[in-house]
Amino acid sequence: MSKQLAVGLFGFGNVGRGLFDVLNKIESRDAYIKRICVRDINKPRGVEADFTDNPDDIFNDPEINLIVELIDDAEAAYHIIKRALTNGIPAVSGNKKMLAYHIGELIELQRKTSTPLLYDASACGSIPVIRNLEEYYDNDLLISVKGILNGSSNFILSKIFNEKMSYDKALRMAQDLGFAESNPSLDIDGYDSLFKLIIITVHAFGCYVEPERIFTYGISSMNDADIRFANEKGRRIKLVAHVEKIADGKIMMSVMPQLISREKYIYSVEDEFNGVVIKGEFYDKQFMFGRGAGGHPTGSAVLSDMTACLYDYRYEYKRLFGHSKVEYTTDVTFRIYLRYSTDADLALFRFERIHERYDSDDNRYVVGDISLESLRAVNEEIRHRHVFLAAYPKD
Amino acid sequence: MSKQLAVGLFGFGNVGRGLFDVLNKIESRDAYIKRICVRDINKPRGVEADFTDNPDDIFNDPEINLIVELIDDAEAAYHIIKRALTNGIPAVSGNKKMLAYHIGELIELQRKTSTPLLYDASACGSIPVIRNLEEYYDNDLLISVKGILNGSSNFILSKIFNEKMSYDKALRMAQDLGFAESNPSLDIDGYDSLFKLIIITVHAFGCYVEPERIFTYGISSMNDADIRFANEKGRRIKLVAHVEKIADGKIMMSVMPQLISREKYIYSVEDEFNGVVIKGEFYDKQFMFGRGAGGHPTGSAVLSDMTACLYDYRYEYKRLFGHSKVEYTTDVTFRIYLRYSTDADLALFRFERIHERYDSDDNRYVVGDISLESLRAVNEEIRHRHVFLAAYPKD
Repeated sequence: MSKQLAVGLFGFGNVGRGLFDVLNKIESRDAYIKRICVRDINKPRGVEADFTDNPDDIFNDPEINLIVELIDDAEAAYHIIKRALTNGIPAVSGNKKMLAYHIGELIELQRKTSTPLLYDASACGSIPVIRNLEEYYDNDLLISVKGILNGSSNFILSKIFNEKMSYDKALRMAQDLGFAESNPSLDIDGYDSLFKLIIITVHAFGCYVEPERIFTYGISSMNDADIRFANEKGRRIKLVAHVEKIADGKIMMSVMPQLISREKYIYSVEDEFNGVVIKGEFYDKQFMFGRGAGGHPTGSAVLSDMTACLYDYRYEYKRLFGHSKVEYTTDVTFRIYLRYSTDADLALFRFERIHERYDSDDNRYVVGDISLESLRAVNEEIRHRHVFLAAYPKD
Repeated sequence: MSKQLAVGLFGFGNVGRGLFDVLNKIESRDAYIKRICVRDINKPRGVEADFTDNPDDIFNDPEINLIVELIDDAEAAYHIIKRALTNGIPAVSGNKKMLAYHIGELIELQRKTSTPLLYDASACGSIPVIRNLEEYYDNDLLISVKGILNGSSNFILSKIFNEKMSYDKALRMAQDLGFAESNPSLDIDGYDSLFKLIIITVHAFGCYVEPERIFTYGISSMNDADIRFANEKGRRIKLVAHVEKIADGKIMMSVMPQLISREKYIYSVEDEFNGVVIKGEFYDKQFMFGRGAGGHPTGSAVLSDMTACLYDYRYEYKRLFGHSKVEYTTDVTFRIYLRYSTDADLALFRFERIHERYDSDDNRYVVGDISLESLRAVNEEIRHRHVFLAAYPKD
């Protein structure tokens, strides 16, 4: 390698600015930002750089040999990446939503154009999850990947559980600190974790599943009764994304709150940190832990992707193109805690068995076994009901 | 990639057997063990495989396209790897001692012969430390790598601290469970951690330092008074390997026991597990945790190295050949706890300042500041004295 990266950067929000700072700090000789495309060119940015609001200024610049896309808008991001690859320009993206919807097509486009797209920064900020799944755990031993993939909701849960802070105050604080998405629903309703889980699953198990097919449930309806229940059981509520190989070449996937016991690695993942547990046969469990959000940590993850481009690294998608195929299934049963208000709410849930039932004037809950398919069937409906649920595994 | 790996395996101890099991279990189509070279061909092995005691049977087999070396003897391992690379056969090694002494020459030989040598399995078993330092944290942001790199000594410390087990019993248990080196001094006197630290430092900071130049001190002289001292301070004693960039392009390195406070990630690394904290500017700290020893976890790490060979992966040694060079120094001062018997013992240590002094009929210790250079100067001498020391950082 002797080339230098002349970067065309799209977006100058939290992460774009983080990347800018990191590059300045290390005085890189390998890469520089040639031009930055932003929506509003008149907004004061407080840095010296060549800004434009016209994408053509980047795509028509023959010197630019890497596109780095760090914008919020998934559809616009998709068109930028597609245009980059079609033009044979390597690209780096941090847009998990865009990837969660378009990864299949973009993998195909990478093959067709022989142009790489890297996106380690899109899942878990500074933790190199994708790279490790792609490079290291690339054999058939992988059993599951499970973790806290959203720093913002975890920050809120930490503040609520450890400092008895109110939900609203914790959310505002996360936003002020710059590690909440501009649309908080992405964080607290689990979608951000979902998008990351989809990307991770492509690399972990070679299986792409559309967002709509995966049960996704967040923490926005959690209340004091739920927190009390968790505390009584010596557990903490965490928002957990989970993919696991179950019998005969099938995988299950879910994003939902989980009552986590003290013995689990992710019990101690606090504040805006992310933690991922990779489980396999023979090597048991690996735990990776780090800052999953924030401009600078994510900016440095983008830099790692850029450096990888410098060395002509590309994802091989070994599992996707390998011989052993897995299929997605919702045919798996687990134990949940469900807090509800009315009998009509409860009736929505097709429990296979109820283990525990509590009923008082101001609080009602059950603990019971239910299939993932049953949950998926009511996924939309239950968002509008006065209920809260969390996986409640025995250990 | 369409080739198949026909492996010539040297050694069939704990890890060699682990690799054999893992390959059998996954029914790999990509790799098979063609022949195994062992010292004693008459020893019953209980497996069906083609054993030999003549290395030529492997080197002269034109079908064998990968040498995997998993023997105990560092000098013999060195000759095997050298012969493999010279013959243009890619090689995988798990021998950290051999690498710690010969890595410089073997990097040169890889370049000269364009033949890769991989050894992720040599440091921290199943935790992909080297690969991540090589691939992911490959920019100038790295500040330090610090961790528990030896599962056996950590197992002993865990049993002593958590279960009040005697030192000898804990050591025997570690050996029975198969994660102690055949020579226990390698584990408990810190040499195993030292060898791994040297390899890690080559990839982390591009700097090779000879084993003799690094202060290395283990846990074999620890006694009840030391354990009591740690407990009183709310800390645990861990055997920590540490490399850190200090002012103006210099790094310090050490392997020694450390009094670890509860807030540190490595405080909770128990039993035979390894834990590594990678610290950098901007991304703060990353923590990787997993099984660092044992036949199956290490065997699966060897498999990862083999799979990487299948994809023509090789270490780039970016930092070694990069533009920013760092130098090794012992000119750094830190706080230690020193338990001693006689004034003559104490006089060996050139403390810059004493903060705390305790003297009773049956126990004497000081807490004070001392330079790494002063410690290095007495490294050999203090092994034969009735003393124990541990780093004792303020936080």
